[in-house]
Amino acid sequence: MRLPKRVKMVEVGPRDGLQNEKTLIPAPVKIALIDRLAEAGLPVIEATSFVSPAWVPQMADNAQVMAGITRREGVGYPVLVPNLKGLEAAIAAGAGEVAVFAAASETFSRKNINCSIAESLERFAAVITTAGARGLTVRGYVSCVLGCPYEGEVDFRAVAGVAGRLLELGCSEISLGDTIGVGTPGRAEAMVDAVAKQVPRHRLAVHFHDTYGQALANILAVLERGVATVDSSVAGLGGCPYAAGASGNVASEDLLYMLNGLGIETGVDLEKLVAAGNYISGQLGRPSGSRVAKALGCREPTSERAATVVTA
Amino acid sequence: MRLPKRVKMVEVGPRDGLQNEKTLIPAPVKIALIDRLAEAGLPVIEATSFVSPAWVPQMADNAQVMAGITRREGVGYPVLVPNLKGLEAAIAAGAGEVAVFAAASETFSRKNINCSIAESLERFAAVITTAGARGLTVRGYVSCVLGCPYEGEVDFRAVAGVAGRLLELGCSEISLGDTIGVGTPGRAEAMVDAVAKQVPRHRLAVHFHDTYGQALANILAVLERGVATVDSSVAGLGGCPYAAGASGNVASEDLLYMLNGLGIETGVDLEKLVAAGNYISGQLGRPSGSRVAKALGCREPTSERAATVVTA
Repeated sequence: MRLPKRVKMVEVGPRDGLQNEKTLIPAPVKIALIDRLAEAGLPVIEATSFVSPAWVPQMADNAQVMAGITRREGVGYPVLVPNLKGLEAAIAAGAGEVAVFAAASETFSRKNINCSIAESLERFAAVITTAGARGLTVRGYVSCVLGCPYEGEVDFRAVAGVAGRLLELGCSEISLGDTIGVGTPGRAEAMVDAVAKQVPRHRLAVHFHDTYGQALANILAVLERGVATVDSSVAGLGGCPYAAGASGNVASEDLLYMLNGLGIETGVDLEKLVAAGNYISGQLGRPSGSRVAKALGCREPTSERAATVVTA
Repeated sequence: MRLPKRVKMVEVGPRDGLQNEKTLIPAPVKIALIDRLAEAGLPVIEATSFVSPAWVPQMADNAQVMAGITRREGVGYPVLVPNLKGLEAAIAAGAGEVAVFAAASETFSRKNINCSIAESLERFAAVITTAGARGLTVRGYVSCVLGCPYEGEVDFRAVAGVAGRLLELGCSEISLGDTIGVGTPGRAEAMVDAVAKQVPRHRLAVHFHDTYGQALANILAVLERGVATVDSSVAGLGGCPYAAGASGNVASEDLLYMLNGLGIETGVDLEKLVAAGNYISGQLGRPSGSRVAKALGCREPTSERAATVVTA
């Protein structure tokens, strides 16, 4: 396997993971989570979003969260912004990095942000230019890169087109989202190869959901195609809004376990990461969505039991 | 990716999946499950084991299960046998294929089957010879190929040694078990390459547990190394006896979803397989362990909900 020596893990749990939680989580809990994630060594932690609280009530405490976290040297705390108003609020709250989000599917774009892809890119152009002028870096998300809940298969040329345009507009990194987790490794690889014609591979990230259990296999496939930035969510926070009860983001712990096993450097401490995931799972009152966390939580072998289990 | 055109899926749910269930499952339920799995197109279904009922009470109805299933043309129904006595009972019950199980770790061998690896191989030599003489094919399992709950890391030369010896003794296929699911793709690949020095790749199968969420990524890695037979368990049946509450076998539905996406032929119908998994999950009174089954169970997009979720 030809793999990158180092992978940058982008933690999206506090934002993408928590945004759909029905019960409002107190800001101090979010702050404690973010600080624990930074303490675990994660280099980038998406902290919150500056989207209208009417859309995403869970993120209404964005300024409070940004004010409460302990900024660690070398850690980025990007926030999601939908428009110039959101950008201004983010800057006022002290954000140094922002992210904008476009889709590769027209129907998804209209349902998710109430405008066409072209309109969204136009809106983002102003956001990206203004952010750049104010010294902020901008990450661009492209959702539905491996399938759309409304349109089904998505043309990789559409993905490459949107990704290329975001780069052109000034995004420093493009994160390719398999929003509904339908992708498989061969298609993930082909998609990355298609996008790489428009965006250099070192500027690409993947954001794969685990809805169909494929996320780690898909990540492995794209690591072999030169992608070295991977989004994940601690404790697998964030179900799939298009399939209630299904898994959402790939769990950071499970991703890190794989990267560790592959000998890929990340700078992240597995034990501290698991502890952060167990902390937020405890606060949410449900078991962690990370298989590694579950396995480590009960790993002591019981010799009595083992002796009576004839297994192959 | 260099992948096989066709993969043989070996379904182990009815045996490896159900054997540790605390509540006795009625034989008619097991029979219905096996028949549904055969109906879904699975070419091999490990049906039960002929191990002492004192060891594995759940499999005490082995003869009843073997008598009750509807044998489908072209489907193999192997059963596990620990010794000559088990073999005789299996033959009396009409088994045409059997499986023996050795370990790559001394401690695991002693804890699991109360003898050393060498002693187990000696015992299996008699089983394999007798089975061959009676016209049965024999599959050999090697457990702990990527780690042992007692010894930690396992030397791949030990794995290769046991696998090679089982082949020499007359096994037609060797299934390499990551019994505790600790493996990662690079090690899985290296392990298969080490074993391939003793056993031709077309005689190898992998039996990877998903305890740490790595199973599909590991399977992808070994498919690229020429392995084309993969064990799995419908609905992810079978927790890990060494980590209560943790996931066990990789779910057949999730494996098939990946293989379908990769364009690899299996002859298995995903919808029927999911239905078989949902049937047994319903009988056990708990949700399926397959992420694909969960996602398909709730895949209808809700436009109202989607419109209020700003996701990236």
